[in-house]
Amino acid sequence: MYYPEPISKLIDSFMKLPGIGPKTAARLAFFVLTMKEDDVLSFSKALIDAKRNLSYCSVCGNITDVDPCHICTDKQRNHSIICVVQDTKDVIAMEKMRDFNGMYHVLQGAISPMDGIGPEDINVASLLVRLQDETVQELILATNSTIEGEATAMYISRLVKPSGIRTTRIAHGLPVGGDLEYADEVTLSKAMEGRREL
Amino acid sequence: MYYPEPISKLIDSFMKLPGIGPKTAARLAFFVLTMKEDDVLSFSKALIDAKRNLSYCSVCGNITDVDPCHICTDKQRNHSIICVVQDTKDVIAMEKMRDFNGMYHVLQGAISPMDGIGPEDINVASLLVRLQDETVQELILATNSTIEGEATAMYISRLVKPSGIRTTRIAHGLPVGGDLEYADEVTLSKAMEGRREL
Repeated sequence: MYYPEPISKLIDSFMKLPGIGPKTAARLAFFVLTMKEDDVLSFSKALIDAKRNLSYCSVCGNITDVDPCHICTDKQRNHSIICVVQDTKDVIAMEKMRDFNGMYHVLQGAISPMDGIGPEDINVASLLVRLQDETVQELILATNSTIEGEATAMYISRLVKPSGIRTTRIAHGLPVGGDLEYADEVTLSKAMEGRREL
Repeated sequence: MYYPEPISKLIDSFMKLPGIGPKTAARLAFFVLTMKEDDVLSFSKALIDAKRNLSYCSVCGNITDVDPCHICTDKQRNHSIICVVQDTKDVIAMEKMRDFNGMYHVLQGAISPMDGIGPEDINVASLLVRLQDETVQELILATNSTIEGEATAMYISRLVKPSGIRTTRIAHGLPVGGDLEYADEVTLSKAMEGRREL
């Protein structure tokens, strides 16, 4: 035996987390021994609470502790624009911007035939239900700029086209503060393609 | 609000761990949501068990779930040699070597006047009690090769001298596989000083 059992179990648990190998796991486990008991208890409780008390919003598909989520029930927000993103972290990135006041729709994934993820595996059906509502005027497709994200955006835009709702895709180009010299070819090509009159 | 409360609490808990900032904490917290419920439950339990069911061995001061610890009660081991180390992780490093069959004494720290840690704050008193036992023939001082570790080794060796027990210090020199060219001056000087007849 190297470690007493309670420690080795804790190390095993830490090792299940992404990016944490045996050495980091051991370091974290030994750190837990030096933490205040209250902190450890609240950590332990937070784990279970996060797993048990969170669910997906029945309207937008975002992770939430109340259903519908705070954003969907917010009367101050503009219900005529829906921004479609791949996951909850994207909603958070958009919210940090403090510039978008519309609604979200979280797909919880992207179409990826290579991984066996088809349109029926992501949260698209409920988006179509929302679009039947007369109030929606614009759908912003803000899926990632990867092959999967682009394919998903393309799929949704074709699906929505017959309904006549304005469908837009967020712009791709040079990041602000980015250097032309270090931009990759595809980004540069997208930036040229998306150029606008001054 | 950016995150639902259960998530933000979990992120706060992860952020209390060393080397984990807000971005990593958020990534880990979202990963927990995708983990199997059983794994999350056992993680949660492991945290509390590690904090509550571990204590210090009354003989050697090592972290253990039974008192005295497995090493102290192991009849197969050589009870006439005690290796003094700073903390539990050092015991594990020594055990991984599979070459040392003696006992340990874990100080749980080192003398460091700068941090207000004196000899009475580390586990020295119980070492002296163990040394009164006739069976102990050698004390190996394997504290770290830092100012604090050296000071602690020096302190203990002076304390033990009157008892006539053989007191040794682990060797310092070039690490195996290390290149002379890249060795720092102090290590090289220690390696020269500790040279032995072939």
